[in-house]
Amino acid sequence: MVKTKIRVGPYLYPMPVVIVGAHVNGKPNFMPIAWVSIVEHKPPMISISANQSHYTNKGIKENQEFSINTPSVDIVKAMDYCGLKSGKDLDKSGVFDLFYGDLENAPMIKEARLNLECKLAITFDTKKGHDIFIGEIINAYAEENIMHGEIPDFTKLQPIIFSMNDNNYWKIGEKIGGAWSIGRDYKKD
Amino acid sequence: MVKTKIRVGPYLYPMPVVIVGAHVNGKPNFMPIAWVSIVEHKPPMISISANQSHYTNKGIKENQEFSINTPSVDIVKAMDYCGLKSGKDLDKSGVFDLFYGDLENAPMIKEARLNLECKLAITFDTKKGHDIFIGEIINAYAEENIMHGEIPDFTKLQPIIFSMNDNNYWKIGEKIGGAWSIGRDYKKD
Repeated sequence: MVKTKIRVGPYLYPMPVVIVGAHVNGKPNFMPIAWVSIVEHKPPMISISANQSHYTNKGIKENQEFSINTPSVDIVKAMDYCGLKSGKDLDKSGVFDLFYGDLENAPMIKEARLNLECKLAITFDTKKGHDIFIGEIINAYAEENIMHGEIPDFTKLQPIIFSMNDNNYWKIGEKIGGAWSIGRDYKKD
Repeated sequence: MVKTKIRVGPYLYPMPVVIVGAHVNGKPNFMPIAWVSIVEHKPPMISISANQSHYTNKGIKENQEFSINTPSVDIVKAMDYCGLKSGKDLDKSGVFDLFYGDLENAPMIKEARLNLECKLAITFDTKKGHDIFIGEIINAYAEENIMHGEIPDFTKLQPIIFSMNDNNYWKIGEKIGGAWSIGRDYKKD
């Protein structure tokens, strides 16, 4: 286990990749993002960090609403397409089939198997170029056929993960074991 | 694609799981966490959200330093073990072999293939139970044999992802394709 000092960068692996939906200038717009994390339990809150140059930031600030859509492998190309051009230059309102819940400005993607409808709760400026938007998840939706009782089946959700240094998308692989369980009998050698 | 409204909860998939290292009351302590995200590029900053009841929070606040260690499949049991008991009740300083970089209070795990040394930059109280700690990554370290030129090889890193609703750990699977690339020729049907 020889350690080497490496170039500092966004070296967190793996990153979940989701598609943020928002209305900008009255039109649905979509942005893939991998800098995303749950940050609160009750109420459930989700955080995204987006460069202030992004077109989507403007819409989130204006309307205080956004959606988080978990893409599956079958829509990876459409998602990536949304990341190639800014909403400033490309109308992305027709890329996906859309639906709405309680919020008028949080367009959700039908083709994404899981959707979160979020009300902006906190905006935080890192002062280094990014806005951190923390949304309260007010509703969640899933495709009926991925549900296992009350929860989405992870193997049917088929989410995508992103490795930032080599810029690749990856599938989920084998199950390793249960959390708060697999280490119960752990003993150091 | 029939959508159903589901119970609202921390439904973000997949979550990267990392091990946070900190000194608490002068001793190294470790906490697995999946609510983690990069939030800034220059300088690189990483955010974690941790319940205020955690023992680790106290140490991060006191010393303004912590580490982020990316576990691989081979140390999943030791990691899970650290999540089963609080540092209040269990001395975790001997669970891993440790090393230090420039910071005296950011213990890093030798057995983890990637390590980030972080200086606390921003602390944010959600007012709902969690502390969001944003650290500037001042140094990064990797096992020499996982490097591919200047960057860690994702398939050699073998990171772990976590699905929160069913509480399972998962391996990374097949590569899907390149970001900012695979969607270049996308056309809606």
